[in-house]
Amino acid sequence: MYVVILAGGSGTRFWPVSRIARPKQLISVVDGPTMLQRTVERVLALKPKRILVVTNSLQAEETECQLSGYRRQVPLDVIAEPVGRNTAPAVGLAATMIAARDPQAVMVVLPADHFIRDEAGLRDCLQTATQAARNSYLVTLGIVPTRPETGYGYIEADMALRGAGPFPVLRFVEKPPLEQALRYLEARNFLWNSGMFVWRADVILDEIANQMPELAAQLNTLHFGGDVWDIVDLEPQIATIYAQVTAQSIDYGVMERSRRVQVVPAEIGWSDVGSWSALPELLEADQQGNVVTNCLAHIAVESSGCIVSGHAGVVATVGVNDLVVVSSGDALLVCPKERAQDVRVVVEALKAKGLNRFL
Amino acid sequence: MYVVILAGGSGTRFWPVSRIARPKQLISVVDGPTMLQRTVERVLALKPKRILVVTNSLQAEETECQLSGYRRQVPLDVIAEPVGRNTAPAVGLAATMIAARDPQAVMVVLPADHFIRDEAGLRDCLQTATQAARNSYLVTLGIVPTRPETGYGYIEADMALRGAGPFPVLRFVEKPPLEQALRYLEARNFLWNSGMFVWRADVILDEIANQMPELAAQLNTLHFGGDVWDIVDLEPQIATIYAQVTAQSIDYGVMERSRRVQVVPAEIGWSDVGSWSALPELLEADQQGNVVTNCLAHIAVESSGCIVSGHAGVVATVGVNDLVVVSSGDALLVCPKERAQDVRVVVEALKAKGLNRFL
Repeated sequence: MYVVILAGGSGTRFWPVSRIARPKQLISVVDGPTMLQRTVERVLALKPKRILVVTNSLQAEETECQLSGYRRQVPLDVIAEPVGRNTAPAVGLAATMIAARDPQAVMVVLPADHFIRDEAGLRDCLQTATQAARNSYLVTLGIVPTRPETGYGYIEADMALRGAGPFPVLRFVEKPPLEQALRYLEARNFLWNSGMFVWRADVILDEIANQMPELAAQLNTLHFGGDVWDIVDLEPQIATIYAQVTAQSIDYGVMERSRRVQVVPAEIGWSDVGSWSALPELLEADQQGNVVTNCLAHIAVESSGCIVSGHAGVVATVGVNDLVVVSSGDALLVCPKERAQDVRVVVEALKAKGLNRFL
Repeated sequence: MYVVILAGGSGTRFWPVSRIARPKQLISVVDGPTMLQRTVERVLALKPKRILVVTNSLQAEETECQLSGYRRQVPLDVIAEPVGRNTAPAVGLAATMIAARDPQAVMVVLPADHFIRDEAGLRDCLQTATQAARNSYLVTLGIVPTRPETGYGYIEADMALRGAGPFPVLRFVEKPPLEQALRYLEARNFLWNSGMFVWRADVILDEIANQMPELAAQLNTLHFGGDVWDIVDLEPQIATIYAQVTAQSIDYGVMERSRRVQVVPAEIGWSDVGSWSALPELLEADQQGNVVTNCLAHIAVESSGCIVSGHAGVVATVGVNDLVVVSSGDALLVCPKERAQDVRVVVEALKAKGLNRFL
């Protein structure tokens, strides 16, 4: 089994800690390892043959640096895309590399920037999915909803037959309005689309050939020398391909149109850690209801419901409630929890001012 | 004329920027020079013969460092008290040193941690006071109140005769309750006790001898070699004296009991910069009503009435009003403006946790 980690994401929602060259997956949103490092650590117990980490060239150096310690435990390659083209080209590239060596190998595809509390539960789900993948299914993990979320896509499963799954997928649904999301929550056979996939390399390449023939043609131009994993030999070829491929997600490009899709329901304490206000999903609050990370000490005087990240220093809050307070040493964010998404407005303002080193 | 700057203060009200070894007078509360440096710069135009800065041994090194640049413009000595004993011993020590060289010299005593917007106005007041001081008066500058402040002591002046003063002092009044403060504001002859004094060295020593004979006896043990300003020779003697003198303010020890006191009313944009919430007295607010200092940039998204100090970095506030947000790089304070005094509670909590390097 191979693990492919999609680590090329960018985004501004964890500013000021996250920056262009250090997006969410490369930061320690909670104390300790970064999101990417946690993603690797989570699958080590599955003893994968190899881990491929697909990132982009801006973040490649930091990615290599953060992962160097794991090379003693598992063969690991970092592949740098010259430019982001969404998930379909990244998945196709990794599948092509794996298939060149081991066509029927099962590959597990994982985003690098999600949090999973129940790691053993994740591994159980992946093992269930692996069985179905060996039988030529495209398997996706569907998160069992815990709230009527309107920000995610849903997967409707045919759960007439009971058990742990996998279940046939009836359809993929776009982000729903609240009323619909409430009905999904009640129905119990609608699952959140997690972006975690399990399939055989040859099967996904076959589906790409069917559904995305242009991408397949581009990927077919790849030729490997003696060593499939020789990145130095590969990166110029990748550059040529990426100059031509269309940006597309593997969900839209393949999964939503394929008839070989199955879903494994996952109740694994999952969070996509969408903004600072998601931290209470990841960390226990203290007695005053404050969620604190990366602080030497949080001095809370009549303060509750705050989310605090302190760049390893001291943060003092006096008489404030439900605030996000985040320091990155050179920059600082203060906003109410319900405005945490608006950090993008701050990043836009910094860009307009030409303060590029803070982006 | 000699200037004596009392720079031995300590305090926690500007935490996290101020620390034990770097109290208010040694920090740049507003951009640019520190409070102490501003105090020196303000009197350079008066061309003093010499400036004596009395500090304590903890802060002596940083004080020397901050003042070294002014030595090209004026003779300047830093005298380190081994321990703080309030203002009477500090004033007595400086007066003794000056009198040893130049008994009838006028000395101007200034706190190092006040802000004065109208510096020319201050110099006018000091010159008016100097005239009276030459005639053997103990002269104090009384700030013309701008609000019914209950946190200051007041001086009642006999202002029957009009003019710029100096006026005879009827009495000193302790911090009044609000109703009384309102009456003082209306009466117009009650002035805030500023801690700024002007007198002849021999006159204040004479009054110390009358009112504080113990202190006078201690000071009389000081003996000078060839050079009065030879600190190396002097500091062991100061240590001996300070081991024995009683802590006392010059206000209580001398001024409140003396019959030779006069006051010069001062309307000079004075502020004692008592806490972060005093910053609007010192700095213009921006268009959104935020007062910002020590920031590379303040990104204010729907934020108003905030007081922001950003350790030369970026501070972003989104959807918050009337907050104090202060970073010192390793520590951070967030509180509503009206709670700015409670920063002392934070400092106590840090002390209780043994986080001494943040005190």
